[in-house]
Amino acid sequence: MKLTEEQKQQFDWDGYLFFPSLFRPEEIKVLMDEVPALYAQRRPENIGEKTANAVRTNFAAHMYSYPFAKLARHPRMVEPIRQVFDEDVYMHQFKINGKQAFDGDVWQWHQDYGTWRADDQMPEDRAMNVAIFLDEVNEFNGPLMFIPGSHKLGVLEAEHDLTTTSYPLWTINHETIRRLVERGGIVAPKGPAGSMILFHGCLVHASTSNLSPWNRVSVYLSLCAVSNHIRCFKRPGYIAHRDFAPIDCLPDDCLLRHYDVPLPWKDGTPAEELQGSLRAT
Amino acid sequence: MKLTEEQKQQFDWDGYLFFPSLFRPEEIKVLMDEVPALYAQRRPENIGEKTANAVRTNFAAHMYSYPFAKLARHPRMVEPIRQVFDEDVYMHQFKINGKQAFDGDVWQWHQDYGTWRADDQMPEDRAMNVAIFLDEVNEFNGPLMFIPGSHKLGVLEAEHDLTTTSYPLWTINHETIRRLVERGGIVAPKGPAGSMILFHGCLVHASTSNLSPWNRVSVYLSLCAVSNHIRCFKRPGYIAHRDFAPIDCLPDDCLLRHYDVPLPWKDGTPAEELQGSLRAT
Repeated sequence: MKLTEEQKQQFDWDGYLFFPSLFRPEEIKVLMDEVPALYAQRRPENIGEKTANAVRTNFAAHMYSYPFAKLARHPRMVEPIRQVFDEDVYMHQFKINGKQAFDGDVWQWHQDYGTWRADDQMPEDRAMNVAIFLDEVNEFNGPLMFIPGSHKLGVLEAEHDLTTTSYPLWTINHETIRRLVERGGIVAPKGPAGSMILFHGCLVHASTSNLSPWNRVSVYLSLCAVSNHIRCFKRPGYIAHRDFAPIDCLPDDCLLRHYDVPLPWKDGTPAEELQGSLRAT
Repeated sequence: MKLTEEQKQQFDWDGYLFFPSLFRPEEIKVLMDEVPALYAQRRPENIGEKTANAVRTNFAAHMYSYPFAKLARHPRMVEPIRQVFDEDVYMHQFKINGKQAFDGDVWQWHQDYGTWRADDQMPEDRAMNVAIFLDEVNEFNGPLMFIPGSHKLGVLEAEHDLTTTSYPLWTINHETIRRLVERGGIVAPKGPAGSMILFHGCLVHASTSNLSPWNRVSVYLSLCAVSNHIRCFKRPGYIAHRDFAPIDCLPDDCLLRHYDVPLPWKDGTPAEELQGSLRAT
């Protein structure tokens, strides 16, 4: 899968690209079938919602779940990113966000690269976000909202919000959001399970609560150019990965056929990955 | 303004009717100009959001605000309701809901008549909800969501939710919502300021939080058939009105021209209207 010149231009302008139905239903099924067991595990990688008995986010499933380990190496996802950065990439963060029916809480307006720079000392914004819909995303189950063009402004001033939800976030103040939206508006790509969004690490995004009876499980990945790897290990390794080896893609049919992939955290997360340290690499 | 047979049929089937741009921009301006002063007043009628310094809802403005006193008597709003009930109506509840930019919180799934029956002893569901948009309503500022046809099931079992938001509500459990949505889906009417929705007192509805930089101020009215007036004054009079006199409509141009209307609470809310009592009528 190669991005066209037009797509590259659009990404540069808007800060995101949307690929409806990029993965087929039978490919998504392989992933979805695994989610309940993942969410049921008692691991530090599962973060609950603040006010409900539901998983908000699961980290690093590609280190201990076979189907997700294959997804992490999928060429339809990895190759366009390699193309944008013109360089090999590694997996910086791997999340499965629940946004569960009725209980899925908001994510306030933020940029991801702001956090990567502040907490992980990632030198530049040469890291790409990926959202892969495991459920259909519609207007009622809390779709991801973007402010097109907001990535052009680099890192915006942000405040560390430790109270709104169960997951701390560097969030952007209201006046800035107002200004950005006046300029670029808001978009919320919607589509069937299997759709994919690529979006810039500086693109400002948010999502509202999910009051609908439809789960909105999505995989959120962040892939970083290898030379741009993080310099600081303040956050646990399962949140900000410390292995900068370039991703080796599997064949395009990898979700439906057997391929050997390592599952190094299958029997538990190594102690040193559970805590932050300030050890430089 | 008269409802057609087709509209009456549609209301019966779906439980709501949507009238885009029913009020003109200059009419809405008269109302909007009054809202900041209303929200700034320190009155018991202003209920704040749980986690923010923003008004969630203001009660009974038609008792102390001149433009809203005229709106409460507007024929474009009152006449179709009188037609549905084939009877005179009185104002049971008058709210201006803020759903303010960034801070507007959710309203969980509920039926209004459930509350009117449980708290106010309103005998039947012969009361109509009205929403009038003072701001544009779009997909990002927390539009009202309906489950079409859900009014057909009468009063559904509900739990008194005292914790989720700052305003207590009889909310419907997840399993019931799931079943209703499977049957009827979800709709969210959107449109310019000045649009109006009429919806059945038993229609199940909710709205999500507003993370956008756009306020979504709406007037929510409940008009009750006079013979169906409430029997119990457990809630304060500014929440559930105790004056069952039929509404006398003003002319159609009332928002733009001067008409004399009473403003009995202009200098404060009478003490007996501030508290609940069990005195029957």
